Amino acid sequence: MMKELTVDLGSRSYPIYIGEGIVLKIASLLEKNGIKPTSPLLLITDDHVAAFHLNTVKEKLEQGGYQVNVHIVPAGESTKSLASLEQIIRVALEAGLDRNSVIVALGGGVVGDLAGFAAASYMRGIRFVQLPTTILAHDSSVGGKVAVNHPLAKNVIGAFHQPELVLYDTELLLTLPPREVRSGYAEVIKHGLIRDADFVSWLNEHADELLALDLDLLGHALYTGCKVKVAVVSQDERETGLRAILNLGHTIGHALEAVAGYGVILHGEGIAIGMVGAARLAVQLGRPERIHTITKQIFQRFQLPVVIPAQLDTDAIMAAMMHDKKFKEGRMTFVLPVDIGEVDIYEELTTEQVRAVVSELKQEGLLCG
Amino acid sequence: MMKELTVDLGSRSYPIYIGEGIVLKIASLLEKNGIKPTSPLLLITDDHVAAFHLNTVKEKLEQGGYQVNVHIVPAGESTKSLASLEQIIRVALEAGLDRNSVIVALGGGVVGDLAGFAAASYMRGIRFVQLPTTILAHDSSVGGKVAVNHPLAKNVIGAFHQPELVLYDTELLLTLPPREVRSGYAEVIKHGLIRDADFVSWLNEHADELLALDLDLLGHALYTGCKVKVAVVSQDERETGLRAILNLGHTIGHALEAVAGYGVILHGEGIAIGMVGAARLAVQLGRPERIHTITKQIFQRFQLPVVIPAQLDTDAIMAAMMHDKKFKEGRMTFVLPVDIGEVDIYEELTTEQVRAVVSELKQEGLLCG
Repeated sequence: MMKELTVDLGSRSYPIYIGEGIVLKIASLLEKNGIKPTSPLLLITDDHVAAFHLNTVKEKLEQGGYQVNVHIVPAGESTKSLASLEQIIRVALEAGLDRNSVIVALGGGVVGDLAGFAAASYMRGIRFVQLPTTILAHDSSVGGKVAVNHPLAKNVIGAFHQPELVLYDTELLLTLPPREVRSGYAEVIKHGLIRDADFVSWLNEHADELLALDLDLLGHALYTGCKVKVAVVSQDERETGLRAILNLGHTIGHALEAVAGYGVILHGEGIAIGMVGAARLAVQLGRPERIHTITKQIFQRFQLPVVIPAQLDTDAIMAAMMHDKKFKEGRMTFVLPVDIGEVDIYEELTTEQVRAVVSELKQEGLLCG
Repeated sequence: MMKELTVDLGSRSYPIYIGEGIVLKIASLLEKNGIKPTSPLLLITDDHVAAFHLNTVKEKLEQGGYQVNVHIVPAGESTKSLASLEQIIRVALEAGLDRNSVIVALGGGVVGDLAGFAAASYMRGIRFVQLPTTILAHDSSVGGKVAVNHPLAKNVIGAFHQPELVLYDTELLLTLPPREVRSGYAEVIKHGLIRDADFVSWLNEHADELLALDLDLLGHALYTGCKVKVAVVSQDERETGLRAILNLGHTIGHALEAVAGYGVILHGEGIAIGMVGAARLAVQLGRPERIHTITKQIFQRFQLPVVIPAQLDTDAIMAAMMHDKKFKEGRMTFVLPVDIGEVDIYEELTTEQVRAVVSELKQEGLLCG
């Protein structure tokens, strides 16, 4: 069973296919979407994913007549660097990629962001295709935000570059380690918290089967999560307004990831804590207490952290947030829930308000040991 | 006297101002074009330009209330690297540049391309302003092509990112070294060769005054050159077709620059030789002999090279062209004149045809000593 969604961006609209065994049909799906096997293709993946899925994908592409060049990067956030970009561009040049070529990203958010930025900048932009292999990537593979990190800040060198299509084969997710599965659900839950309270209830109800990777339920969860993302991105591709709501939990989350050192706290873990922080801020601003209760509960249900690890320094976390690109002209801007399934953007938060919540979350971390 | 042109790209349209003393009005021109002094601004220039013009520009911006951060890069093509980009992003983060900030490029093509790509990729794109300080930059500062080099190929990592405005103060050109002046006129001549035979005659007639930097004539030359560029870019921003005609002379030119080592042969020198090569190819394909005669003559009139330096290896030049991004799917594509003031794109040239012309141009280089 294959579900299909369309990201509606006029001439740059593209489909997302979600379902079991999609990779087996990759060649025909590429052809159907205007990607012909005339120019060399570059398949980028990481060493973890390569061990499980590279051969199948490569074989299916070659059976369809594609000339496949493979570049394998080390797994992990530190791969999202300008140095990795330079290597990819070298491989692309040596393989003779031209303006009609396509880069295929087989992996999670790291591979998608890196390969996507390579596609955005190689010869000032060639096409790319996302084959997400994580749950987390249901978020990052949709919407065209691509980037690499700078030693001082995450995702600060990038572009808006939409893929030609997203092929989401749920079977590829069966090899995910349990911690990655849990982390991935944080973004799925986020989409519920932003726009769909019923979906939050559904996730709560089916948490056990979802954590066990029941493929039918997983397909539904990814489809519903993507649908929220697609609706938002279709309205505001370049984050001039509405799209910022997708950053719920990300301001604190990114800071935690940066301070802990990339990869120590997983992205989903960081934003889970960040969303609990956002819920606390909302309650302090007078929103109903249930926002915090339900937010905390759903993340606990998915075995995700809800407090800041005791060893992380509050000053360092605050400093990392100051570098965050979501702060315009010195004011602290946060996406905060106004209820479950609804958020708003608050532009006038003070440093003190934010610091107080960070301290509370850390205090609880100390109590948890 | 200030001339104004508009690059017509719908919601991303922008003006080009050309004339004497424009820098003195920079603050009011920025304000007029929607750039308010609310967020920190980053002024990027190179050490050569800084010595002459930095203080004036900085002072005028500060008088207008702008918070100016300055980053000075080493002059020369080798500055157009990912390493330079990483430094600029560091400076931008440390200076607190946000999404409303602006990067101002004060310099020639190298500074414009580098600063422009930094603006294109910082936080996935902030605004930038071009203040060209060379004649060559009348070409590169208009049209939004920004990029850095890869060790294997020039301009291969980049974006299409249009400036908010271009401020072209002809007085800044008075400090240019004579070799840079000559090199700069190569792009001006190119615009005549592509679309305006009368302009080629006019340039031929006024070569001496133009080389002596008569500001009135220079202003007219830049205005007319820009006008050709603007007309082409307005019709085809992303080089899906027509815009490729602006690459006249560039395929051979880029290869010569790369093989000689960036900066040994100046860009204008490379493309002057490249345009003579294109004229030769055209004549061999049956076009009138005068194309070659007039093309060679106009570059000689501006004291530009018209043969390939003897020390450059033919195989290396051919190999460098194979990496050129203008080759689609293995065919050799060239922009060639069909007459003076008119060009067309030839997609089916053979390697042998091109190699023969490269050899001839080199043979003449040997004869010239």
